[in-house]
Amino acid sequence: MSLLFKHLRIHQIFGANTNVGKTIISTALARVSLAKADRVIYLKPVSSGPPEDADDGHVLKYTNLGNRRVQAECLYRLRDPVSPHLAAIREDATYNAPTDDTFINAISMSIQRQAQEVGKQTHMYVETAGGVHSPGISGTTQLDLYRRLFLPAILVGDSKLGGISATISAYESLLLRGYDIDAVLLFKDSYYRNYEYLESYFKTRSIRTFAVDTPPEKHSNPTLKSSLTEEYYERITSQSSENDITAAVTHLDTCHQSRLATLDSLPRRTLDAIWWPFVQHKHLKSESDVSVIDSALSDFFSVFRRRTPTKTATSLLQSDFDGSASWWTQALGHGHPSLTLAAARASGRYGHVMFPEATHLPALELAEKLLQGPGRGWASRVFYSDDGSTGMEVALKMALRSVSKHTGISREDSKRLGVLGLKGSYHGDTIGAMDACEEGVYTCDWHNAKGYWFDPPTVGIKDGRVSITLPNGIDDTALDASSFRFESSAAIYDVEQRMGTELAQIYSKHITQTLQKLKAQGVTFGALVLEPLVMGAGGMIFVDPLFQRIMIDTIRSEDTSSSGWRGLPVIFDEVFVGLYRIGMESTGPLLGVLPDISVHAKILTGGNMPLAATLASDSIFQTFLGDSKADALLHGHSYTAHPIGCAVANETLKIIQELSTSEHWITAKENWSQASGSSRIWSLWDRNFVMELSRMGVVKEVMAMGTVLVIKLKGEEGYVSTSAQAFLSSLKVPELQDSSSISPSPSGVPFGVHFRTLGDVAYFMTSLNTSSDVIRSLEDRIWSALQKQAVQDE
Amino acid sequence: MSLLFKHLRIHQIFGANTNVGKTIISTALARVSLAKADRVIYLKPVSSGPPEDADDGHVLKYTNLGNRRVQAECLYRLRDPVSPHLAAIREDATYNAPTDDTFINAISMSIQRQAQEVGKQTHMYVETAGGVHSPGISGTTQLDLYRRLFLPAILVGDSKLGGISATISAYESLLLRGYDIDAVLLFKDSYYRNYEYLESYFKTRSIRTFAVDTPPEKHSNPTLKSSLTEEYYERITSQSSENDITAAVTHLDTCHQSRLATLDSLPRRTLDAIWWPFVQHKHLKSESDVSVIDSALSDFFSVFRRRTPTKTATSLLQSDFDGSASWWTQALGHGHPSLTLAAARASGRYGHVMFPEATHLPALELAEKLLQGPGRGWASRVFYSDDGSTGMEVALKMALRSVSKHTGISREDSKRLGVLGLKGSYHGDTIGAMDACEEGVYTCDWHNAKGYWFDPPTVGIKDGRVSITLPNGIDDTALDASSFRFESSAAIYDVEQRMGTELAQIYSKHITQTLQKLKAQGVTFGALVLEPLVMGAGGMIFVDPLFQRIMIDTIRSEDTSSSGWRGLPVIFDEVFVGLYRIGMESTGPLLGVLPDISVHAKILTGGNMPLAATLASDSIFQTFLGDSKADALLHGHSYTAHPIGCAVANETLKIIQELSTSEHWITAKENWSQASGSSRIWSLWDRNFVMELSRMGVVKEVMAMGTVLVIKLKGEEGYVSTSAQAFLSSLKVPELQDSSSISPSPSGVPFGVHFRTLGDVAYFMTSLNTSSDVIRSLEDRIWSALQKQAVQDE
Repeated sequence: MSLLFKHLRIHQIFGANTNVGKTIISTALARVSLAKADRVIYLKPVSSGPPEDADDGHVLKYTNLGNRRVQAECLYRLRDPVSPHLAAIREDATYNAPTDDTFINAISMSIQRQAQEVGKQTHMYVETAGGVHSPGISGTTQLDLYRRLFLPAILVGDSKLGGISATISAYESLLLRGYDIDAVLLFKDSYYRNYEYLESYFKTRSIRTFAVDTPPEKHSNPTLKSSLTEEYYERITSQSSENDITAAVTHLDTCHQSRLATLDSLPRRTLDAIWWPFVQHKHLKSESDVSVIDSALSDFFSVFRRRTPTKTATSLLQSDFDGSASWWTQALGHGHPSLTLAAARASGRYGHVMFPEATHLPALELAEKLLQGPGRGWASRVFYSDDGSTGMEVALKMALRSVSKHTGISREDSKRLGVLGLKGSYHGDTIGAMDACEEGVYTCDWHNAKGYWFDPPTVGIKDGRVSITLPNGIDDTALDASSFRFESSAAIYDVEQRMGTELAQIYSKHITQTLQKLKAQGVTFGALVLEPLVMGAGGMIFVDPLFQRIMIDTIRSEDTSSSGWRGLPVIFDEVFVGLYRIGMESTGPLLGVLPDISVHAKILTGGNMPLAATLASDSIFQTFLGDSKADALLHGHSYTAHPIGCAVANETLKIIQELSTSEHWITAKENWSQASGSSRIWSLWDRNFVMELSRMGVVKEVMAMGTVLVIKLKGEEGYVSTSAQAFLSSLKVPELQDSSSISPSPSGVPFGVHFRTLGDVAYFMTSLNTSSDVIRSLEDRIWSALQKQAVQDE
Repeated sequence: MSLLFKHLRIHQIFGANTNVGKTIISTALARVSLAKADRVIYLKPVSSGPPEDADDGHVLKYTNLGNRRVQAECLYRLRDPVSPHLAAIREDATYNAPTDDTFINAISMSIQRQAQEVGKQTHMYVETAGGVHSPGISGTTQLDLYRRLFLPAILVGDSKLGGISATISAYESLLLRGYDIDAVLLFKDSYYRNYEYLESYFKTRSIRTFAVDTPPEKHSNPTLKSSLTEEYYERITSQSSENDITAAVTHLDTCHQSRLATLDSLPRRTLDAIWWPFVQHKHLKSESDVSVIDSALSDFFSVFRRRTPTKTATSLLQSDFDGSASWWTQALGHGHPSLTLAAARASGRYGHVMFPEATHLPALELAEKLLQGPGRGWASRVFYSDDGSTGMEVALKMALRSVSKHTGISREDSKRLGVLGLKGSYHGDTIGAMDACEEGVYTCDWHNAKGYWFDPPTVGIKDGRVSITLPNGIDDTALDASSFRFESSAAIYDVEQRMGTELAQIYSKHITQTLQKLKAQGVTFGALVLEPLVMGAGGMIFVDPLFQRIMIDTIRSEDTSSSGWRGLPVIFDEVFVGLYRIGMESTGPLLGVLPDISVHAKILTGGNMPLAATLASDSIFQTFLGDSKADALLHGHSYTAHPIGCAVANETLKIIQELSTSEHWITAKENWSQASGSSRIWSLWDRNFVMELSRMGVVKEVMAMGTVLVIKLKGEEGYVSTSAQAFLSSLKVPELQDSSSISPSPSGVPFGVHFRTLGDVAYFMTSLNTSSDVIRSLEDRIWSALQKQAVQDE
């Protein structure tokens, strides 16, 4: 999204207010730049007011050096000298106002055009309109509009009475969007002396302030005015003290060089200091293996890529689609201003405050929302922790204690309680959560698999057909092929409808018999633990929902508890699948059964920071009441229910609520319900695209639900397979589907796709609000990548 | 810090800029309030400019209703019509400018005076000077100055050109300090129409906007001017449309009522929805058991307390000192603006971005800082996770794999590797971290204690003497009492000096013999795991550092590894003790030995949000290199190295760096080095106070290091004891030591102390920057509480 070139140094000029001298200071900067650079560009994307007052005209007039001049450009001219959004409204009826996309793409293209002259050192100044939050043509404020370009900023401070406040607030608004502020410049008003205060204020914040002599009074005689102005520019650009325009330009050069040098140094420094999770460092030797993420916006990373030769017209920063939604966390896109403000507000109001026996509004509101959301109809309590893994450990502690207490078993016996689950489960990386899964490649030295895991029947689409694959061990000889084939995903997920089928009886028999066998062996259980519908980390396995339903029903039919839960406490690990990741708030309603405990994280904070919540029914909670403190749930992390995370989660859930009734989702649901008559199962991915994918030769199986698209590829199977990476590697390189089109990336440039694979399984995940443009574009990219592969294979 | 009364509704008026009409709007609000309330107060704490223009004079003149008028008050008058900080400088030499404390206390006292008339419904408006960030008299900006009062805010927007930007930026600056913004008011300028844009902007942010007719032009004829102005106020205050002043006052009333109702509802709602960590819910039945934290600043919570009778002159919000530093997390105080801005900036720039094979500046910089800080001289890698517990699980996985791989033991044998540690250890609440500790009250059903734990010799001060207590099992018959008594803490912690003592030999023999015995039993170990110097959760046990040193030396003398670590990998769990919590960056230099792995959290993010880092030596890292991905450390949480946490940590470490050379710390170090000649061991707590405490009858033992003060009280021992709570319960009630004094709480009101105990152990913990005033005041409070108890006991 940001554009960065070695030979083209770009700064964007923001104002602390309107009328603080942005154009005068831009002119002075451009004039000094003329002496230092081969070319100087001044870009005023939008100008309102009469042409004779136009900023680009002013710049043109007062910047020249011998026969060299600044190139000044204005992209959109509006007549009325008011805020652009109002000026646009006041244009005549034929005026066709650009959208934010069109507007940013025009600037982006202008910058890329300028970048073509690779042999010339170029300085470019892009001026904004009004103050940092003045509305642009569409009404979006300057900061939220230009964030897609994310150019290094110069803040022109306000030297008038009140200007200290305006300058600091503008600075804070810039920081809230993550900007680099290379310099503050303002007029040296000797009465209010704002520059003195601000210089020291910004010095402690590592920002250089430059004070510039105030411009001459406006003179009515145009000739005199012009000569006074010329004399003024001459004066402020020719001195060279520590704090003037010449020093500022030198400083901006230094900032540019230092930005390039820092980005260039990151791969080596990272390879020297960082120990990554889930990465075999021996395989990463080259600096080019490191993705340097300079910033991120919506679904795109801005990634630094070294270019050779060093003088290149291609931006050193490239847009990469965040194809794994940053490990399944993103819900609303990176750098969402509302989440940032929610975080900032809670940080300013509380920081962290300790939670036991205390309360604060963000934690309480979130608990109430969760109880009314995924906990509706069954949960009475919310217990907070820091991530999905700790949330699951809490869930396990809740369930195990409930069973121990209810059955009155000894402390030694309770250590042997196992969990009942499915092969392929994954509940997080802490040792206790891992013990709830089978031993495998992920498990550590202390791993002690506690439980029994059924081999699950799975759901997939191949050759346009949705079908169920049974594992070995389930006797399906009584059934014909039609029992496994369905007209649509919606039909497979119509669990109630399928409860009366023969397959249901077979599942039931298989589960009951297995449990009886385990019982005979003396195996005891403390919980039924499921990732409902999809087992994520285990390989994006879509489990037949009917099988999970019957597991729960079977367990609950053994009514061994009088205290609410029946058979065993049922834990839903919804860390991955919950909160609309796969198109539904929670999975209970679809399965037709509700859990006793559920765990939520990832999307919970909209992809911003760690927080987890474990929900429990009242009967589970009651287990921990007693006269002794030792009976309580003695688990808690220091930052339990940290207000910042809770506030961000509240904002996230609020925005998701709005999305759930949005046109965007309604359209996507219609796309899926057309074939099946039901929107039970739907996806932001196009149904036809998914069906066509399933027909490709290189594809073994596909599935799509909600934001998730999963493609199982032919080749070696399992976690250590590299087939998915190999098949799709061409996605990593930025390219446009069609050379005449503009990419839907934030700055309209071609984008690469950053994606993670699980062995032979490739998956792509969007945010909940990823635009159709982006998804269609991704579908095209995926399609061609696989086509290319298919051709190679022939 | 905030003051809140049922009968006294207070709002603070902030300006989006100077000269936006704050006083006019305040006047209009006050005028309407006169018709609705029994009393109306207008407080302009500081006024600059000639008296004839004074805001309070203007308010007085234009607010009256029959024989009732607004009470207008100004606390500080300055002559020059410039920013107060400049005006104060320009006063004559006799001018004694108030400090921020004096200034805020004066306002606080004025508010409390007004609150005395409990029978009268009162509206109060407190006007600020200039824009939200205009400097006050001391130079602190309005927002950072008034944050201590944290009054509900009204933002007066800017109706001029550029005013949309100024208003939104000011709003964002208010949010960064956590403010409640009850309303935005601005003039209805019909040319720029800012109110239209802003009304819709703030509506989506749940804030009501009220547009007010623009005031008349200033007229040179004073009589005419006055009558025009009177006519203007008459007009804007008498209408009653949806968006005028009358509606605004009604809305402010509603906000006040709703604020009271919400706070009042929190205890019940919390008791109904929340499951607290480490709390026996059966013991909490009453709503008054719930601490309702409305906000927090520096070391103080602002806690809502219901009052009976309902009409009371005492604020419903009370200041409580956060005596456990919010579970040992606080380092720089709550709501620190620099941490908030760091968080906001990273959120705006990245949100979260996934970490494997990627890098971003906040994570890399933090890693480099940690390697140069606690990792200096030994660590080469940083692995991130979410909290101390997960950080310890990562550390254990690192150590266990190293030992397994080095010794080539079977997968089954590696499951049995134990940790060597100390009784009383506590490494976090996840099941794996718990398995590294003995079974006890905290452990869960699946707990499986893996290892051996030595009973440690401990350090304490009693009757002014620092001494060591040996546990049973260490044969000390060869030593006389002088071996256990020391002149100062510094002497006990001079580990090098003590290495040659007889006690050292006894320790060495004891440890060696025990290890031989264990070896003979076939016990195998995978790590030596220590909380160096202090075992926190286990009961604030100060372990004899010599014992820990000799444990490490003994283990390392068995040189069984050629790969860097010797004997066993040594893990330092510095989650609690590290980063200056006990006065030193890390404990290795004092112990004279460095670990192979260390874990850091809590202070790491300055008390803002969860983040943990596990540091490892190169030899540990090398263990995980291999040809297969399965050899890698396959552990990672979704939000690993989240940029927001890393950015906050970087800012925290930067500020701590500055603190470490501050006058505040130098003075405290001198206070401790006077007696011992060494500042090796020092504390923010006064040495004499600590010594005197140790002489009290009710006190069994005390210790102080860095920010931590630990008092072991007489009575029943252990975690379930309630003696510490009982002895110190009077601390909870706010009181002033001396009725003539002003408390050092943020708003100068008396404060209570919120503290946590570990059974018979009371501890008090400050931030790293808690002022001496606050600490002296706490010392007085603790002293009297224990004195009172001693008297009762007689």
